[in-house]
Amino acid sequence: MSISGKNLIAGEWSGDFTKGFSATNAVKNEPMPEVFADASETEVEQAIARAHQAFASYSQLPAVQRAKFLRTIGEQIVALGDELVEMACAETGLPAMRIQGERGRTVGQLGLFADLLEQGEYQGVFDAADAERQPLPKPDTRLGYLPLGVVGVFAASNFPLAFSTAGGDTASALAAGCPVVMKAHAAHPGTAELVAQAISKAIELCDIDAGVFSLIQGKNYAIASQIVTHPMVKAVGFTGSERVGMILQQQINQRPEPIPFYGELGSVNPQFIMADKLATEASTLAENLVASLMMGQGQFCTSPGIWSYVKSVDTPVFEQAASAAIAATEAGVMLTPAMAESYKKTVASWQSIDGVELLAQGQSGVAHFTQAALFVTDLTTFKANTVLQEEVFGPCALILRLQDEQELAEFIGLLKGNLTAAIHATDKDMAQSRTVALSVAHKVGRLIYNQMPTGVEVCASMNHGGPFPASTDLRTTSVGSEAIKRFQRPICYQNMPNELLPQLLRS
Amino acid sequence: MSISGKNLIAGEWSGDFTKGFSATNAVKNEPMPEVFADASETEVEQAIARAHQAFASYSQLPAVQRAKFLRTIGEQIVALGDELVEMACAETGLPAMRIQGERGRTVGQLGLFADLLEQGEYQGVFDAADAERQPLPKPDTRLGYLPLGVVGVFAASNFPLAFSTAGGDTASALAAGCPVVMKAHAAHPGTAELVAQAISKAIELCDIDAGVFSLIQGKNYAIASQIVTHPMVKAVGFTGSERVGMILQQQINQRPEPIPFYGELGSVNPQFIMADKLATEASTLAENLVASLMMGQGQFCTSPGIWSYVKSVDTPVFEQAASAAIAATEAGVMLTPAMAESYKKTVASWQSIDGVELLAQGQSGVAHFTQAALFVTDLTTFKANTVLQEEVFGPCALILRLQDEQELAEFIGLLKGNLTAAIHATDKDMAQSRTVALSVAHKVGRLIYNQMPTGVEVCASMNHGGPFPASTDLRTTSVGSEAIKRFQRPICYQNMPNELLPQLLRS
Repeated sequence: MSISGKNLIAGEWSGDFTKGFSATNAVKNEPMPEVFADASETEVEQAIARAHQAFASYSQLPAVQRAKFLRTIGEQIVALGDELVEMACAETGLPAMRIQGERGRTVGQLGLFADLLEQGEYQGVFDAADAERQPLPKPDTRLGYLPLGVVGVFAASNFPLAFSTAGGDTASALAAGCPVVMKAHAAHPGTAELVAQAISKAIELCDIDAGVFSLIQGKNYAIASQIVTHPMVKAVGFTGSERVGMILQQQINQRPEPIPFYGELGSVNPQFIMADKLATEASTLAENLVASLMMGQGQFCTSPGIWSYVKSVDTPVFEQAASAAIAATEAGVMLTPAMAESYKKTVASWQSIDGVELLAQGQSGVAHFTQAALFVTDLTTFKANTVLQEEVFGPCALILRLQDEQELAEFIGLLKGNLTAAIHATDKDMAQSRTVALSVAHKVGRLIYNQMPTGVEVCASMNHGGPFPASTDLRTTSVGSEAIKRFQRPICYQNMPNELLPQLLRS
Repeated sequence: MSISGKNLIAGEWSGDFTKGFSATNAVKNEPMPEVFADASETEVEQAIARAHQAFASYSQLPAVQRAKFLRTIGEQIVALGDELVEMACAETGLPAMRIQGERGRTVGQLGLFADLLEQGEYQGVFDAADAERQPLPKPDTRLGYLPLGVVGVFAASNFPLAFSTAGGDTASALAAGCPVVMKAHAAHPGTAELVAQAISKAIELCDIDAGVFSLIQGKNYAIASQIVTHPMVKAVGFTGSERVGMILQQQINQRPEPIPFYGELGSVNPQFIMADKLATEASTLAENLVASLMMGQGQFCTSPGIWSYVKSVDTPVFEQAASAAIAATEAGVMLTPAMAESYKKTVASWQSIDGVELLAQGQSGVAHFTQAALFVTDLTTFKANTVLQEEVFGPCALILRLQDEQELAEFIGLLKGNLTAAIHATDKDMAQSRTVALSVAHKVGRLIYNQMPTGVEVCASMNHGGPFPASTDLRTTSVGSEAIKRFQRPICYQNMPNELLPQLLRS
């Protein structure tokens, strides 16, 4: 496959290279050779109009054919072979093994939704008629689900495959019967184009209206605004920073017609270490937390950012072990030079906060690499500096030493929403764990016991979301089979003859 | 029971009568004797703060106890006896039989949610652990649901019981485990207070934290703003006009933390009359449509506002029958004098639109009563006057004569979102009905065949919602047992010991 640098607009590749841009080879810190065409307003308009047009046929496509389409996309992604892995590694700096794993997860996600479609895309609810009921007869009513319409998706920087072009949002929207207009992430446009080529081939092989998928390249903010405010766009999926997410949210708020906005924004993923756990497994736990923090150079959305416990005689053992583990970490490359810069600025600014102490740093490396940082503070400082509750994108964690149970309760009360929290405890900690679990549950989308938050299982019982700012819509998950529900809505059919009912609702 | 005119703030009745207001006796068109205290900012703040506080215990209350609470509310509403019926009739002008029926529905709704809670308030999803899985072990994950927190509810004018103080929003929020801060409708404050007295008694009998329910009286818009922008309020339910609903939506959009807003706003409930139906059952259908239109003096949210068909030799039969039925209707009282005025203004303004013809009017009555109106127009006029697609609150319908199937398709394309649409057809119309059903489905929350849209069944398969402006959140229903999902959100428990899991998720 060769990279065209163009936008895929409903099956046609087009682009004006006078406004071209290139990504950066993350490890080499130099521009990639490929040039990409910033999409024009006309191209975006065409993509959305053709998606809207395709909705008429695609929303009627039988579920088994949508399943076949999803599986074919997966096959075509695998068929891209090493070229995809090499491109993604170059653009993101992530190692080959990680990209291979992420490719497996991406193909697996497509398969999960295909399975769901084959098993029956939803469970209908039926209430039979009763002509004899008093005072009025009861009608026959059946509850089913319809796709929403065109979905705008914004790719994430940190998962170039699993949360990008053919990632979870795209897979669940296509599964639901919704066409997708995908805004590629400007940090990995080559990876995006390769995957779009795979989707385009799958569209041909499955004989589907090409309007069902378009890929929009660009660094231009106006593109994003055009997508989210377009009257034909009926839902938006986004994974990224709170800052950019809230810009999109505000634009969506200006629409005359409200639409669902699924923004996964920020999370510090608090860790709660109970007394007996600290007394008995301090060193192992510290090493495991550091290993979890370092995954993807701290760029996982579930990275453990705040580690809390009530101070005790065991505290120093944990802190020494954690410091030693941090000090042993090698410097690493981040997804983009801008992200590395931003990370370094945050670490520097934390060092200047009174009451925040830098416990340990990882090894330094070449200039555009970043080193891990472990800070420690107390609740008074934490309360006085709300910046400490904001997600740091990169390998930085904050230990929060609490004086007593009351401070622990106060800390939980202060927490904003998070994707996850984890309780680290032994059986002896059960009473305290219960207290923590009951209150922390209201702050998170996933509550974990004695496991690390990184690593999100793709399954039916997963919830990847949570109270704001973890998600702009805490009623939904972006991972797992329930994610399809974001792009469907209920419809009741009353007294409908069998011939006019969807297949799943027929007698 | 006597009416205090006060606000119920977490079990305490309070109010400053210097800013008092009274409702209007609708039939007599004169002020009711009772005076109500416009709630102060402090009272609203207290109500919300106490609701937030009560959430800690109420969200933990076992489902069977929440069920008992709901049933007790129902019993206490019934125990109010004729006083409630008389008050509601006086304040709304609705006849006693209608209020008695609505009381039955309200108590039935409470019972429906109680049944749901007793049967298991949600269906957990389980994925078992697999320690042997490669390359990584699979954790145990279980998906459950948590209540959102404090819910603000705004009562509807047209259903003083079923969509008001202890109506569907309140019942489903309380069922989910959410405290409710209820803003009474200023047109029926006495009815609201009586029902609040019943809820207050149920709270005492069930020994529940009184913060779980507050009733806010008032005509003051600042109250509404204070409720929907309060950081402790986590969801809002509203049934009313598009104008007021969008004011609330815009205020909610200003919040730093987005929250769900369930606004049921406007719907014209289009009727599609097929050719053979028109040829064979024109008169009966016309009479049935007029009867449906006249329910509650045209103040049902599912009132059939637009009747469409392709013109044929049978059209005059239908139009003559409909005109005769309209002409035979007596003048009726509306919920408030202001609504009657607004209705009359709309009817007058439609009469001045070129291309819109007044086919028939109902009988006239006393000055503050309203008479039915039946208009007819063509697609060109309909397209040129978007006002014709807005809901008219009152007994007014518009016949839309279409030239051919192409105009029919164009009309469907123009439609905004609606709560319902109905297809009136015979077996001979099946092919055309299928075409209409497939496209109209995307514009409505409920699609009906050969029945009238008025009358919303309260059951598991009901959907009362739909694309905007029918609802501000088309993924949800405000009627039926699925309504509880509006006030819950998913949470995944990973590797959790049995002791720390909610009852429904334990092994």
